[in-house]
Amino acid sequence: MPAINPERLLSDLRTLRGIGAQGIGVVRPAFSAKDMEARRWLKSRYEEAGLDATIDGVGNVLGRSRNAGKALLLGSHSDTQPTGGWLDGALGVVYALEVVRALAADKATGSLAVDAVSFQDEESRFVGCLGSRSLIGALTPEMEEGVVDNSGLALTDALRAAGLAGAPRQRLAPERYTGFVEAHIEQGPHLEDEGRRIGVVTGIVGLRAIRFVFRGQQNHAGTTMMARRRDAATALYELAHRINQEFPRVAGARSVWTMGRLRLEPNATSIVPGYADLDLQFRDASEVPLVAFEGVVTRLVAEMNARGGVKIEATPTRAPIRPTHMDPGLQSHIETAAERHAPGKWQRMPSGAFHDAGIISASIPAAMLFIPSIGGISHDFAENSRDEDIVLGCEVLADAAAAILTAANTQ
Amino acid sequence: MPAINPERLLSDLRTLRGIGAQGIGVVRPAFSAKDMEARRWLKSRYEEAGLDATIDGVGNVLGRSRNAGKALLLGSHSDTQPTGGWLDGALGVVYALEVVRALAADKATGSLAVDAVSFQDEESRFVGCLGSRSLIGALTPEMEEGVVDNSGLALTDALRAAGLAGAPRQRLAPERYTGFVEAHIEQGPHLEDEGRRIGVVTGIVGLRAIRFVFRGQQNHAGTTMMARRRDAATALYELAHRINQEFPRVAGARSVWTMGRLRLEPNATSIVPGYADLDLQFRDASEVPLVAFEGVVTRLVAEMNARGGVKIEATPTRAPIRPTHMDPGLQSHIETAAERHAPGKWQRMPSGAFHDAGIISASIPAAMLFIPSIGGISHDFAENSRDEDIVLGCEVLADAAAAILTAANTQ
Repeated sequence: MPAINPERLLSDLRTLRGIGAQGIGVVRPAFSAKDMEARRWLKSRYEEAGLDATIDGVGNVLGRSRNAGKALLLGSHSDTQPTGGWLDGALGVVYALEVVRALAADKATGSLAVDAVSFQDEESRFVGCLGSRSLIGALTPEMEEGVVDNSGLALTDALRAAGLAGAPRQRLAPERYTGFVEAHIEQGPHLEDEGRRIGVVTGIVGLRAIRFVFRGQQNHAGTTMMARRRDAATALYELAHRINQEFPRVAGARSVWTMGRLRLEPNATSIVPGYADLDLQFRDASEVPLVAFEGVVTRLVAEMNARGGVKIEATPTRAPIRPTHMDPGLQSHIETAAERHAPGKWQRMPSGAFHDAGIISASIPAAMLFIPSIGGISHDFAENSRDEDIVLGCEVLADAAAAILTAANTQ
Repeated sequence: MPAINPERLLSDLRTLRGIGAQGIGVVRPAFSAKDMEARRWLKSRYEEAGLDATIDGVGNVLGRSRNAGKALLLGSHSDTQPTGGWLDGALGVVYALEVVRALAADKATGSLAVDAVSFQDEESRFVGCLGSRSLIGALTPEMEEGVVDNSGLALTDALRAAGLAGAPRQRLAPERYTGFVEAHIEQGPHLEDEGRRIGVVTGIVGLRAIRFVFRGQQNHAGTTMMARRRDAATALYELAHRINQEFPRVAGARSVWTMGRLRLEPNATSIVPGYADLDLQFRDASEVPLVAFEGVVTRLVAEMNARGGVKIEATPTRAPIRPTHMDPGLQSHIETAAERHAPGKWQRMPSGAFHDAGIISASIPAAMLFIPSIGGISHDFAENSRDEDIVLGCEVLADAAAAILTAANTQ
């Protein structure tokens, strides 16, 4: 059984935390100077660990093992949210580095091929999961064209400023790999609530989003009688409340839906609003409730439009993300390792947040493991996990990696 | 029967429209240079009409008749909304001037005392109905203290810039007056819809307003299960929709209620909102539905708070405006005049918007007459009325004024 070095693991995580640190948080958005500094640091660590390392044309850091046989890809992303936590994707990136070192140092596992990766822009500064999409050949020119960040900076200018313009883009060779495993903090409260220390991810939830537009008639709030009004806000309140009443009837046990962004015009106390819009998004690990939710929405909108008055349009706001199933064979190796290191203290669970593993699974088998987030907090400076959970997760990953590669290379 | 001069009336209205004109609209907010220019123009017109005219310490323009006997006060306000229409209060101000002139020119009415007024800041740049409140002694130092407009300008600085600092403030002597009549555009669609040309106002609706604050817990929209959420928006949608469902059961025929302003935090598609607020206002000419509405709100908020989760606070956002009844004697004189000039083409109606007459009625008997607004539009550059309705309204007012004063001085 390969032995990771807890001090080295925590020390490397803290070094990475220092690149872009602000207080207890980290500001290292994709292609920023601090992000590129972190990627160069990581490349040098990969090289010290004996990997052939490159930073490719979109900023992915890829370290390839020189060992023969089927390889296992480990990693996550080192870019952060605009005001991010220190672990998030950095945890899985440093886990990969530590597992490479631990397996190399052990006679029984020294000949196994572990590659390590840090994907670029998982956090959607320009294109969500830009790096993993590029690596499997799923990043089309249309997806890059004209893309700007929230400040108006173009992706092409960000690539140039990062020194990446014209650099070759790596492509994953699926035949090289037996699979990909991404470790990550949970970003939710379930493990902590249930007293578990490891989550074995069964799938990544699918997501659909709809934007509602309500068109009515703006009027004076004192002189316009109720029967004559076409109040966009009244229609919004009704539709939103009825969605919240009807969705539970067709929801799965872990379905979630959110209507957290809206706009009224003119948004004034004494004016009947003539316009409103509202975003609805819903997620589940199965397509069944997602399809049922869309059915409820279609029926409610048709019913309200049939009444006349405010006119409601419902438009999908993005390509749906289909639920992804994690590879059962990889999962079972992770479960065996989890049970060995944390007997009875692990569980299977879906991921409510999206991850690069959801992209990579379209090309090679993929799996994920989670460690607990303190208070379920993430995408926030306050994000944290206990050191013993950080160490445990890496032990489970190293053990699972050895088992996966041993099985893949003795078939 | 006194004869007004339609050309002179329309010409004076158009002259006043020219002071602060922007396209077809008017920008003459209280205490602005254009507002004060209009007030000086009006003062000179009052003097030409034989009145003793002053601009007082808050900007009210008051023209007093030199005739003996009980007097009648006529007028409205000449300040406008930030982007206002040309008639609004200007109509009633110029009507007063024209009625003074018409009655003075007629032997039968030449000895009657008609005073004319243009109140200041009816449109709430600083304090709604500032001028009429001041005139009846209802403007307290607390109401003026620290008041600023939307741009942050202090009322005291606006008074100084307008040259009014230290100027004496007029007080209405109730014993001088038999009453006050304010003419105004309707600002709603009722007269036009029902083919009427004059509205005799029975009362001004009361208004109450409540601000709801919803305190929940901000969370990740992917990883936070529904049962665990405390979603401020979900509570807002439910309360707003249930108010819209329950209010009709206790509403009067002309009750109105509006929830046209709200805020979610952080108002992002993928985040469960932890905070929301919402404004509710409701109006009726009777206190009965207003009290019933407050009862419904109290019950719904208590019921939702008892469930736990999101905590809702409901706070009145302003002192309630009590419904005001217009004086029956004054109304009956206006009705007689309306029937003479527009037989079958007038109606009694409440005012859904607030007016200076609602303030003045606390001191002396008050009444109002409306003329139709084209398309019901007001507080907008596009506000307009037909010339023949403008002339008719002034004829009715002159006739009613003569009748009111004749009756008051022969009792």
